[in-house]
Amino acid sequence: MESLTSLKNPRVRQWAALKDRRERREQGCFLVEGRRSVTDALASPFPLKALLVTDPQDPFIRPGLPVFQLPEHVMAHVCDTRSPQGVAAVMGMRDTRAEGARLVILDGLQDPGNVGTILRTADAAGLDGLILSADCADPFSPKVLRATMGSVFHLPVEIAENLPDRLRALQSDGWVVFSSQLDGMPFREGAFPPPDRWCLVIGNEGNGVRESIRCLADRRVCLPMRGRAESLNAGVAAGIMMYMLLEET
Amino acid sequence: MESLTSLKNPRVRQWAALKDRRERREQGCFLVEGRRSVTDALASPFPLKALLVTDPQDPFIRPGLPVFQLPEHVMAHVCDTRSPQGVAAVMGMRDTRAEGARLVILDGLQDPGNVGTILRTADAAGLDGLILSADCADPFSPKVLRATMGSVFHLPVEIAENLPDRLRALQSDGWVVFSSQLDGMPFREGAFPPPDRWCLVIGNEGNGVRESIRCLADRRVCLPMRGRAESLNAGVAAGIMMYMLLEET
Repeated sequence: MESLTSLKNPRVRQWAALKDRRERREQGCFLVEGRRSVTDALASPFPLKALLVTDPQDPFIRPGLPVFQLPEHVMAHVCDTRSPQGVAAVMGMRDTRAEGARLVILDGLQDPGNVGTILRTADAAGLDGLILSADCADPFSPKVLRATMGSVFHLPVEIAENLPDRLRALQSDGWVVFSSQLDGMPFREGAFPPPDRWCLVIGNEGNGVRESIRCLADRRVCLPMRGRAESLNAGVAAGIMMYMLLEET
Repeated sequence: MESLTSLKNPRVRQWAALKDRRERREQGCFLVEGRRSVTDALASPFPLKALLVTDPQDPFIRPGLPVFQLPEHVMAHVCDTRSPQGVAAVMGMRDTRAEGARLVILDGLQDPGNVGTILRTADAAGLDGLILSADCADPFSPKVLRATMGSVFHLPVEIAENLPDRLRALQSDGWVVFSSQLDGMPFREGAFPPPDRWCLVIGNEGNGVRESIRCLADRRVCLPMRGRAESLNAGVAAGIMMYMLLEET
């Protein structure tokens, strides 16, 4: 176990830089903070690059793991949270392809809380995976990781450089694409009974699903608005639709 | 129309202080920011105390309204948002009692985003009202008001000083109380078919519904967790349950 005590240590600097998306991409790594999330990360297919602990007796330490001991102020500097619970893990990225019959697609969703919450809800509801357009909030950012409560390690999360192409490929393999949009058909009419393979597209908070995706969707759907609210929060709308679809498939 | 140009003006100081919950309670007022929310506020039963504008030609100005013109830096000082769109309204509080057959109860929910989102979803789903325990995030705080997107003006929001007593009174009038908790029965089994009158209790993000409420609930219910997530975000769980119940009532 190596001990790193200086904020100027090159490794410490690299890890602290992982708060930035471009750095995560360049280093091919992301940082996971806190006991529960580190547990999930270590049990996942993502490779562990470094385990950071403040306590040299930390129960996460195992022979053969790349462990680094940091004093608390260095740990706090590396981490995004104020109280990182004395443990963090630097994990390597991996190319992931979302497979399975029931998928959620996020198109330009930019709020980290919404992206994280939808990941968590997809996990709870029993979906098979998620596909994010490249301009969504980064699922490996500290804020999204916190909001997922570990779910990013429970189901495949794919980032699609060209989302329309990816959706067309799914369609030609038999997936039905639902686009959630305010001018869509009532959800129960448009989506039920659900087909064997479907993917549900959730759009950007302000602008909804992009036109290039809307026009290739098989069905455009919307939850009923019975009161006077004009729309739902994207994370809530996604959650309601996922749970309703999963009840019937 | 009076023009107030100084940050030291006593009225300006009073309005700026409305960011604080105790001040809202003492003044009996709250501040609404932005064009859409002010539109909803003016159409609501809440009394207008002062309309604040930066532009003396603002279309909100009507004869007989108590209008005050503020330069932009004073408006920014009074408001919580960075770009308050040149308009804000000081509204008087009013005692509200939630009535109607389908109610949501928030027990100790402390995240302003969750409280606001549940209010917005309750409005969209067509519920009749909300009751909040006194230790919830204040529905008239700037953050909650933003997250509600105006829904706080669309349906009655009651604050109950003694929530167990209020629930017992509802029960004796025929309401069935559902408590949402992780050790509850599967939701479809526990809550369906829904009775004519029900109220759904959503608990605190970390600790769930309080024991004093759990033990008086008629049925304890939980959404199925099919994947590996241990729980749902409180706002999402509430949204799914509200939409499912409203589909059947």
